[in-house]
Amino acid sequence: MALLTRIRGPRDLDRLSSEQLEQLAGEIRTFLVDAVSKTGGHLGPNLGVVELTIALHRVFDSPRDRVLWDTGHQSYVHKLLTGRQDFSKLKMRGGLSGYPSQAESEHDVIENSHASTVLGWADGLAKANKILKKDDHVVAVIGDGALTGGMAWEALNNIADAKDRQVVIVVNDNERSYAPTIGGLANHLATLRTTDGYERFLARGKDLLERTPVVGKPLYETLHGAKKGLKDFIAPQGMFEDLGLKYVGPIDGHDMEALESALTRAKRFGGPVIVHCLTEKGRGYQPALQDEADRFHAVGKIHPDTGLPISSSGADWTSVFGEEMVALGKEREDVVAITAAMLQPVGLDKFAKDFPERVFDVGIAEQHAAVSAAGLATGGLHPVFAVYATFLNRAFDQVLMDVALHKCGVTFVLDRAGVTGTDGASHNGMWDMSILQVVPGLRLAAPRDADQVRAQLREAVEVTDAPTVVRFSKGAVGPAVPALRRVGGMDVLREAGTDRPDVLLVSVGALAPMCLDIAGLLDQQGISTTVVDPRWVKPVDEALAPLAEQHRVVVTVEDNSRVGGVGSAVAQALRDAGVDVPLRDFGIPPRFLDHASRGEVMAEIGLTAPDIARQVTGLVSRLDGRFETSSKAVEPARD
Amino acid sequence: MALLTRIRGPRDLDRLSSEQLEQLAGEIRTFLVDAVSKTGGHLGPNLGVVELTIALHRVFDSPRDRVLWDTGHQSYVHKLLTGRQDFSKLKMRGGLSGYPSQAESEHDVIENSHASTVLGWADGLAKANKILKKDDHVVAVIGDGALTGGMAWEALNNIADAKDRQVVIVVNDNERSYAPTIGGLANHLATLRTTDGYERFLARGKDLLERTPVVGKPLYETLHGAKKGLKDFIAPQGMFEDLGLKYVGPIDGHDMEALESALTRAKRFGGPVIVHCLTEKGRGYQPALQDEADRFHAVGKIHPDTGLPISSSGADWTSVFGEEMVALGKEREDVVAITAAMLQPVGLDKFAKDFPERVFDVGIAEQHAAVSAAGLATGGLHPVFAVYATFLNRAFDQVLMDVALHKCGVTFVLDRAGVTGTDGASHNGMWDMSILQVVPGLRLAAPRDADQVRAQLREAVEVTDAPTVVRFSKGAVGPAVPALRRVGGMDVLREAGTDRPDVLLVSVGALAPMCLDIAGLLDQQGISTTVVDPRWVKPVDEALAPLAEQHRVVVTVEDNSRVGGVGSAVAQALRDAGVDVPLRDFGIPPRFLDHASRGEVMAEIGLTAPDIARQVTGLVSRLDGRFETSSKAVEPARD
Repeated sequence: MALLTRIRGPRDLDRLSSEQLEQLAGEIRTFLVDAVSKTGGHLGPNLGVVELTIALHRVFDSPRDRVLWDTGHQSYVHKLLTGRQDFSKLKMRGGLSGYPSQAESEHDVIENSHASTVLGWADGLAKANKILKKDDHVVAVIGDGALTGGMAWEALNNIADAKDRQVVIVVNDNERSYAPTIGGLANHLATLRTTDGYERFLARGKDLLERTPVVGKPLYETLHGAKKGLKDFIAPQGMFEDLGLKYVGPIDGHDMEALESALTRAKRFGGPVIVHCLTEKGRGYQPALQDEADRFHAVGKIHPDTGLPISSSGADWTSVFGEEMVALGKEREDVVAITAAMLQPVGLDKFAKDFPERVFDVGIAEQHAAVSAAGLATGGLHPVFAVYATFLNRAFDQVLMDVALHKCGVTFVLDRAGVTGTDGASHNGMWDMSILQVVPGLRLAAPRDADQVRAQLREAVEVTDAPTVVRFSKGAVGPAVPALRRVGGMDVLREAGTDRPDVLLVSVGALAPMCLDIAGLLDQQGISTTVVDPRWVKPVDEALAPLAEQHRVVVTVEDNSRVGGVGSAVAQALRDAGVDVPLRDFGIPPRFLDHASRGEVMAEIGLTAPDIARQVTGLVSRLDGRFETSSKAVEPARD
Repeated sequence: MALLTRIRGPRDLDRLSSEQLEQLAGEIRTFLVDAVSKTGGHLGPNLGVVELTIALHRVFDSPRDRVLWDTGHQSYVHKLLTGRQDFSKLKMRGGLSGYPSQAESEHDVIENSHASTVLGWADGLAKANKILKKDDHVVAVIGDGALTGGMAWEALNNIADAKDRQVVIVVNDNERSYAPTIGGLANHLATLRTTDGYERFLARGKDLLERTPVVGKPLYETLHGAKKGLKDFIAPQGMFEDLGLKYVGPIDGHDMEALESALTRAKRFGGPVIVHCLTEKGRGYQPALQDEADRFHAVGKIHPDTGLPISSSGADWTSVFGEEMVALGKEREDVVAITAAMLQPVGLDKFAKDFPERVFDVGIAEQHAAVSAAGLATGGLHPVFAVYATFLNRAFDQVLMDVALHKCGVTFVLDRAGVTGTDGASHNGMWDMSILQVVPGLRLAAPRDADQVRAQLREAVEVTDAPTVVRFSKGAVGPAVPALRRVGGMDVLREAGTDRPDVLLVSVGALAPMCLDIAGLLDQQGISTTVVDPRWVKPVDEALAPLAEQHRVVVTVEDNSRVGGVGSAVAQALRDAGVDVPLRDFGIPPRFLDHASRGEVMAEIGLTAPDIARQVTGLVSRLDGRFETSSKAVEPARD
């Protein structure tokens, strides 16, 4: 790491020779494999952008010029070149974020992990530069996969419209997002990839054309004078140039000289321009290149030499769902699956293998996933759209206005719901149980264990006249939590054991074991507690209000924002039923959460059994002496 | 109407001669002007699609073939041809919906008014047909304006990928949405419009090319063999064909013969195809054609001969906002405005006239509006994005993950918030105060009158480190509602007049006059009531809990979904403060609302002063005798 350790900032790259730059690229790849195999992280994407990142920082002058990364997990090299080389606590509490972070560096802008946003940011920043009369450049790096997202299109349409704004769009084309990119766009990019390029054609073709007459004029002139021009006939940059964007490429994204040359031309152009770079995900690391599924998109801790995982956890929520989908697929021919470019991460790979005609990868296009699901349902099928909980935010309007308004039987399976932790603020699935509460007719299940995932998925796909949602956590699924009995549609997980119990504890989804722990702790304080799992948290079960009325206080615990979540829905249901039993709702406070392990985050926000038990104990004590202290506040979950 | 009245369904069109079809088109235009001038409605768009709709229903066999309309306000002609000719109560209670409606006809599919969804529906329906082995066609009509929306792109990318699915995309290109369409796509469509078309070129050009040798081969063959092919060189269908979609056009959208010929070819093609039709919004109606702003996109009641409005209402919320924006623009050079293709409807036309460099029409692209706003703010400006409340749903993820996470000072102005009524379920702005509750840091103002619109807009643009929202109703703004005093940030609108008052009534936004009426009615029952307007409803004002504690019951009234709205937020704030005063929250029930006037809708859902006063009276009576009847429920707002 002789060279790398001497790079404190982008300008340190200026004085390096070609040979040194090659050496630096090699050092960076060694560093990445070494560091990320120890911590886990996004390895494949970063191995693919080593030369590109170096070239960008040599040609542009960050932070005056803005270098923006779409889906910031491809920013590790950028971090290394902008003064951040301690990767020992990558994605851990107190360590580097797995994404760009304004708090870490003035070279960072976009912090979130939701794809296809970078062109919108670039458009806004370029508009601001224009108004404030700055001639700085805005450079946006976007993958071919992210170009399938509608936001990218909306932004391209705007960027293309302003010939005087200096936006350089670098398409980092590795033919994949997680999996190979799909759709008409992917086919178009493939065509672009295999062409010579306009400039190279000209070098050998122009003379010939000039010598060839057509109807008395040289062919070159004839073609050149046509509306479309020669260029598009030779090299089909078509789509981008049709929109009004200058196109440069395709460029070998691992040829530093070619990259610098192309980026320099783009920089001088003075208007919006696309630089099409061909890169290889996992470049230079054999285990990644051999992984056809996702090229080591994101890995846990691995052996650096072999790429094999160091530890493998047990059954996880995702695979329980994935296996049940296969079983369902066999039983019901009308069940089809949808993914937004994440077939394997959401567990649909086995279903796809068994039923290739019945699975649809729509690209990074959650809106389209939801709307086309409405179409599929109206056409007579039952679609199951499996997606990370946080990404469903993208399709809120479509869930509401297309699926729910039209009473379509569509099932949304939300993976990685709740606190996920290390991927930071934008990966936590803490919004779904709040925003989906407003959707008329929608029913939402939060299974507590593997058995319930299977059972509730089956209940969901039986519903034909409304959207259904099944949401579960990230990672390993815990042991089965048995029900003692059922009240209405709810499972009683623990009996209070007295006629006039103190607390009704409403446990949501995977927090069931924690809620049983809370009950145990309360028991030690002489506070009798019933624990109930509503299973379907929307609508609120009709049996809940009568049950609540038999208790002195109702407590809800959910792995979702406290605001507008299950607790709020239960509180409203009790109000509507005229049950004015005091209620306290525990959940995630309404703020963005820094990256740390799930356990660390849960502890920090007070979502632990001891924390909650302590607060409930305090509340019950005050109720015992209520006339003296009734106006005292319960300490809300820390925020 | 000799012909029109004889059309009971699409198949009645089959037997008409060319002359009769022309006559029918004329009758339909006369009908539309006559009918819509009496009721109000979407006039311009429907005048533009008369011939297109007739041709579609002659070539395709609805409902077996699905004829889908994007932004369904262009479906009036379709209604006339599918058995619905009583327009006397258009958009009124019990009358025809202003959009397609499955309840009205088997010929209707997509009911909502949010743009750019039709291609996603078409993709889903075509996928279902394929799986179910049906060879029916799916026809999607989409405006050029709606193509600027990202969902359209996501869908095109998918539709283009499947060569064996029968999707016919009809681009209804009138160069406008409300206003002229913007962006690179619009420029591309303009290029397409001015070309001869491939077929016509071939007719005169192929012979010539075949006779012209290049390097020993005929030029035709040379060009034809090139990757891009001759076609794109001659007629730049480029973009769509690059994606893999066959392109037919441009077609004169008022030439019935040309339309039928093109649609028939498209139908026979057997794969995805775009038919590019050029139409004129407002066709055949002089007052519409002379209206450069929006070609009578949507009108109230008008004089059919002159197009002049029959009555003009007083100042409305929109213009109060629009005028204050102009004032702000003069004072602050950093204030810029954004619209999603609705400059005039959201009141930004005056700002655009005075500050043309500082207003951005981004197309029908709410996601891009929000993300580019984050970029603008990060670049040093203060953007104000004015949009209908219901359309902000489209940008929920971007408000959360781009604007709020990055602490950007962006102001969202939500027009048409609350019950809007006649445009039906998807136009009501009843979701914003719920879903925005979860956004960390976001502050939300609900001004009650014109003075507060001005004041709160100014307070909003002062905030530089978080998103702010100002939401107001549709239509005429009422008289000023003066504040008696301020408590915290809240305005007290009415004093209870006793030391131990009964009810704290929390009034949200434009419902202030209704809340004062409620208080008056309660007063008649001997129930003393304080009325407070929190002004900023998120976060909940810290002064609210102490004030609530001085009352026996808290009542909230909002023009928003009851679920997760202001009432829920207030209830949670009181719980967190340990104030267990009973609370009842009134708002819109969690269901989709049928079209009717705002007053009719409000009455139907129980959001009227007498309804609420009656329920509050019942609650207070029960509290008076609480030990006898404490378990009785208050009747919730009807749903």
